[in-house]
Amino acid sequence: MANNDDQFKKVISHAKEYGYIFQSSEIYDGLSAVYDYAQNGVELKKNIRDYWWQAMVQLNDNIIGLDSAIFMHPTTWKASGHVDAFSDPLIDNKDSKKRYRADVLVEDYCAKLEAKIDKEVAKAEKRFGEAFNKAEFVSTNGRVLGYQEKIDSILKRLGESLTKEDLADVKALIEELEIACPLSGSRNWTEVKQFNLMFGTKLGASADSAMDLYLRPETAQGIFVNFSNVQKTGRMKIPFGIAQTGKAFRNEIVARQFIFRMREFEQMEMQFFIKPGTQAEWYDYWKETRLKWHKSLGLGEENYRFHDHEKLAHYADAAADIEFKFPFGFKELEGIHSRTDFDLKAHEEHSGKKLQYFDPEENKSYTPYVLETSIGLDRMFLAVFSAALMDEELDNNTTRTVLKIPAVLAPTKAAIFPLVKKDGLPEIAKEIFDDLKWDFNVMYDEKDAVGKRYRRQDAAGTPFCITVDHDTIEDRTVTIRHRDTMEQKRVAISELRAIIAKEVDVKHWLQKM
Amino acid sequence: MANNDDQFKKVISHAKEYGYIFQSSEIYDGLSAVYDYAQNGVELKKNIRDYWWQAMVQLNDNIIGLDSAIFMHPTTWKASGHVDAFSDPLIDNKDSKKRYRADVLVEDYCAKLEAKIDKEVAKAEKRFGEAFNKAEFVSTNGRVLGYQEKIDSILKRLGESLTKEDLADVKALIEELEIACPLSGSRNWTEVKQFNLMFGTKLGASADSAMDLYLRPETAQGIFVNFSNVQKTGRMKIPFGIAQTGKAFRNEIVARQFIFRMREFEQMEMQFFIKPGTQAEWYDYWKETRLKWHKSLGLGEENYRFHDHEKLAHYADAAADIEFKFPFGFKELEGIHSRTDFDLKAHEEHSGKKLQYFDPEENKSYTPYVLETSIGLDRMFLAVFSAALMDEELDNNTTRTVLKIPAVLAPTKAAIFPLVKKDGLPEIAKEIFDDLKWDFNVMYDEKDAVGKRYRRQDAAGTPFCITVDHDTIEDRTVTIRHRDTMEQKRVAISELRAIIAKEVDVKHWLQKM
Repeated sequence: MANNDDQFKKVISHAKEYGYIFQSSEIYDGLSAVYDYAQNGVELKKNIRDYWWQAMVQLNDNIIGLDSAIFMHPTTWKASGHVDAFSDPLIDNKDSKKRYRADVLVEDYCAKLEAKIDKEVAKAEKRFGEAFNKAEFVSTNGRVLGYQEKIDSILKRLGESLTKEDLADVKALIEELEIACPLSGSRNWTEVKQFNLMFGTKLGASADSAMDLYLRPETAQGIFVNFSNVQKTGRMKIPFGIAQTGKAFRNEIVARQFIFRMREFEQMEMQFFIKPGTQAEWYDYWKETRLKWHKSLGLGEENYRFHDHEKLAHYADAAADIEFKFPFGFKELEGIHSRTDFDLKAHEEHSGKKLQYFDPEENKSYTPYVLETSIGLDRMFLAVFSAALMDEELDNNTTRTVLKIPAVLAPTKAAIFPLVKKDGLPEIAKEIFDDLKWDFNVMYDEKDAVGKRYRRQDAAGTPFCITVDHDTIEDRTVTIRHRDTMEQKRVAISELRAIIAKEVDVKHWLQKM
Repeated sequence: MANNDDQFKKVISHAKEYGYIFQSSEIYDGLSAVYDYAQNGVELKKNIRDYWWQAMVQLNDNIIGLDSAIFMHPTTWKASGHVDAFSDPLIDNKDSKKRYRADVLVEDYCAKLEAKIDKEVAKAEKRFGEAFNKAEFVSTNGRVLGYQEKIDSILKRLGESLTKEDLADVKALIEELEIACPLSGSRNWTEVKQFNLMFGTKLGASADSAMDLYLRPETAQGIFVNFSNVQKTGRMKIPFGIAQTGKAFRNEIVARQFIFRMREFEQMEMQFFIKPGTQAEWYDYWKETRLKWHKSLGLGEENYRFHDHEKLAHYADAAADIEFKFPFGFKELEGIHSRTDFDLKAHEEHSGKKLQYFDPEENKSYTPYVLETSIGLDRMFLAVFSAALMDEELDNNTTRTVLKIPAVLAPTKAAIFPLVKKDGLPEIAKEIFDDLKWDFNVMYDEKDAVGKRYRRQDAAGTPFCITVDHDTIEDRTVTIRHRDTMEQKRVAISELRAIIAKEVDVKHWLQKM
């Protein structure tokens, strides 16, 4: 079995080779941490977005959609806290002129200590063999305990220092630990400074009348500022939700891990407005409901886990991540946040407008609490793609590369082949294409031997291959081959639509929730 | 009949009242020329996008999709000509400090001359009554001819001056015509300067390493820079197309006419790569094909016309607009442009990479020519919405406001009502909702008298209303009411899915093309 690093490299190169993801502006040697979705990628991304939208908006009578602009009035970001607090602590090495996130430097130092713990564990495991009990060893070995205590104390101090306005303590910590620049080896550091992660731009033409704008760093605020307009024109009663998908932008200093952390990315967020005091029950409801949505795709239950936050953001009274097992380990895929009334109150304060709800049952007005579900569309794409990509050993001792994307999300639902490029077979295959294209994204392919065409569609993630052969002329039947089982069946052309629909229909998949 | 101005105001207020479009950041007193799509707007916009995507990508074996990022390498915009030539000529009035587009000042002057012509025509028409022949009058009346000649000579001179690097001639023209600032009445003008319409931002943290980026002003360039990657990984043969929808941004000085000209907007573009020399035939093909797509929606054939460009952009050898009759007159809705090999050649030159195609039939490589279709999604939204909104006089001498959005594009396909809120009727209505929601965007409404609920759905654009009454309990039938005819029919609950599907199915509409 390939190790994780190799698997991740394979994901990246397969994504390019099969038309899923290209580096942005590749002919100009690329733009760092920005990616383009290619001909198959755009379809997979669209299908994920639609699958989310249907589950959230179409199936729920009390959730409606919104599409707010990327540009918003700048006071929005003052109210939300982003102008003051959405920043990373940066430090420069004076010799290499290289810039780092100060907290990451400290965390990397701790990671080295953890590597030492792992080394001790591995040595002991080798010595004791099957009798080795890791938990017991860790809790009794003095050296390991020492490392662990050091890590804990460093991270505690880092956490406390980062929340202060003055970041001198973080600098002091870096000096005490004698952390050197990985590039120059020097310990000649500048002060630590906060760097805001929002991209800025200017609206309007003249220098004096231009307005400083930000590219939104999250879609959520577009929902909050529209709360009253949506509630009133949509005649919504609490509890109700507003869902939105769209681009957001963050000027990440260290953007990495392919499309996992990009500077331009897409979110799928839902803000659920509730009566204050009911947030605990809705928090549990949405954690469970969102996990069910993920599991409905059948990517493996063992690939998901919850991670409850101990350190809460300033707006939250409870928060959990749904983590997914990416090629580089378990990482956040979706966040469920109990945001209280922080945002609506903040916008009330900064705008001077009331953002309240009149509850006809209680016969009084109040500021609703908010339960948020927030998922990165690009991360979801990476989760689906990396879990789906595999090398399979076949009975005849060969291997095939197959992309087992859930059929409901697959870019192309079926590829239609004439067995050979003559005898009228291409004409029949094209007829089938022209019939099925009204209902599904299908393709026609006549190049190379059929076996090679099957492999190509396996690697591209197409759930069905339909082959027209000489018998088709006689009896209007074709073979239909399933990507996952490689099973081939002889069926009538007239049955094709129903067979494909059954497997790719959104309804069929969402009903598994 | 309402005049055009009134109709346009009605469109804007109806769009807000029925949850289609809100001013962006309204609680902060708005952000100029930026709008948010509300709960119904987001669905209409999505349905238009999907209708385009299905017609372009799904139905054509040789057109595939792409979703390139908003951020691109800055050299892209050097190559495309946007850095040097995508600008407006601006002039400031020194007394009012107000900034204007110099060409618009001159055009407004000409519009005043045109108003004088109209006045002469109106006077003569009144005098001659039915015998009046407008064309003849215009071609023989000395005063009218004088105004027309002056307009022609001013616009000719303006056109020539604008293409020069030095805009002194435009300034001279403004001075000669004695154009005054509409605000201050003063003729105290600055020089005319070019102002680039691209929004800029900075990528990266430190001042010295930051990279100047632009928000893309069009989606087309994302297709050109990916040409080779898509062609090779998609194994595409010429002729083939790449289609993309996505946001673009322009720092318009005078943004106006609601969502017709916004600073943040969405495009739906397709670049069709062809053999040099075949552009004339493909130009005709795409003009006709795109017009058919528009007409398939049934918004009225008289609302469309072609406008062939006489003045061509630097990259084009032919260009035409499909114009639509908006409430403010015929304006560009879609452009069809024969772009030659200008863009691919420019990117080759700036990147040093080959952007050619090896033609297996010709057995040689060449730079393809490009035929582009480019439509503004927001403009398309405005076209559909404004053509659909009408006040209808009914037989009983009342009027109803109805939004006759083509059923395939309507945000909500059906609303389900219990006649009264008791006797088990809400339960049956909810059962129907829970059944139909798997296939359509439907809603449940039990508030107010049924007549009022019908009117509400008419104004919101919902094609079907389904009412559950006491007979439903006995025989499992309901009434289904059509928005456009207001006809009501008694049908079995089990028939509903098929009845709705027939009217809202994309296939059914696209087959009219």
